[in-house]
Amino acid sequence: MSQLTYEQAKVKALDYFDKAGIIIREQEKKALEIADFGLGELEETGLEIVTYVNTERCCAKELVLFPYQTCPEHRHPNIDGMEGKEETFRCRYGKVFLYVEGEAVANIKATLPKGRENTYTVFHEIELNEGEQYTLMPNTKHWFQAGDKGAVISEFSTRSRDEADIFTDPDIQRVAE
Amino acid sequence: MSQLTYEQAKVKALDYFDKAGIIIREQEKKALEIADFGLGELEETGLEIVTYVNTERCCAKELVLFPYQTCPEHRHPNIDGMEGKEETFRCRYGKVFLYVEGEAVANIKATLPKGRENTYTVFHEIELNEGEQYTLMPNTKHWFQAGDKGAVISEFSTRSRDEADIFTDPDIQRVAE
Repeated sequence: MSQLTYEQAKVKALDYFDKAGIIIREQEKKALEIADFGLGELEETGLEIVTYVNTERCCAKELVLFPYQTCPEHRHPNIDGMEGKEETFRCRYGKVFLYVEGEAVANIKATLPKGRENTYTVFHEIELNEGEQYTLMPNTKHWFQAGDKGAVISEFSTRSRDEADIFTDPDIQRVAE
Repeated sequence: MSQLTYEQAKVKALDYFDKAGIIIREQEKKALEIADFGLGELEETGLEIVTYVNTERCCAKELVLFPYQTCPEHRHPNIDGMEGKEETFRCRYGKVFLYVEGEAVANIKATLPKGRENTYTVFHEIELNEGEQYTLMPNTKHWFQAGDKGAVISEFSTRSRDEADIFTDPDIQRVAE
């Protein structure tokens, strides 16, 4: 990702936190993570992240999704005999379409990222509006996309190890090598 | 606590969530917990709580403290060989004075609840303003009080077992029998 893409995405993400009434400190703004999952298609596939805390046992983040931006399908596996990440998503602003394992809907409300349709395999749809939340148990495949206003999502979870996440799309590299 | 006290505190607490821009669903409003710790002195000693999620591994809550209201000194012990609760407090609105074990300040900024001064023993002071946070490891004695505007605090933690908390004040009963 170019420095310009990063800086532009950062300004945009911070504007979403403002809209959601979420106060982010200067040092958190500096450390804001823009994840394009190694695809270089940030508008379609990406996630903007502020990590508040991530210890051995507990993690909390704020996530921004731009309009129609997608966090691609993945799961949090067990590692070294320790249970994988459990996470709760709470929508603070906008709308999120979350897809998990289970009965698929006939027509999903999200739009699959172009050229990557085959890397999406779970279509049980959960719509999260402001104040709504959903808890995912470890090792459950999931992906999510914001609606037309974008979204701000609080994530409450056990320890986060992004480098261990398993993505359906083989082109994805979550953490730069 | 009388029904009237409960209802009045609830209306007040919900107003704080509004001020903090935090959206609470109707069913969460109904389930809002007003804790007076069995002391019947809610203005001085109390806490207003919305629990978003509390599983075996992970918990998230929003807390309200009215102006100068105090969450009394306690710790989260290990239980049945399992590590006690680890928690992060993030101030979303107002100001919080948090006291933990460690070097005591000469003059604390909070005011100890009258008649209960002897039940406070840790005075290492941490001031949390909006966007600031602090992480407490298990079994650490702590207490906290809001400033003159009151406070809204997000709590990110491992499993919460309020009934297991150990309070310094022997008069306190966290969970009604």
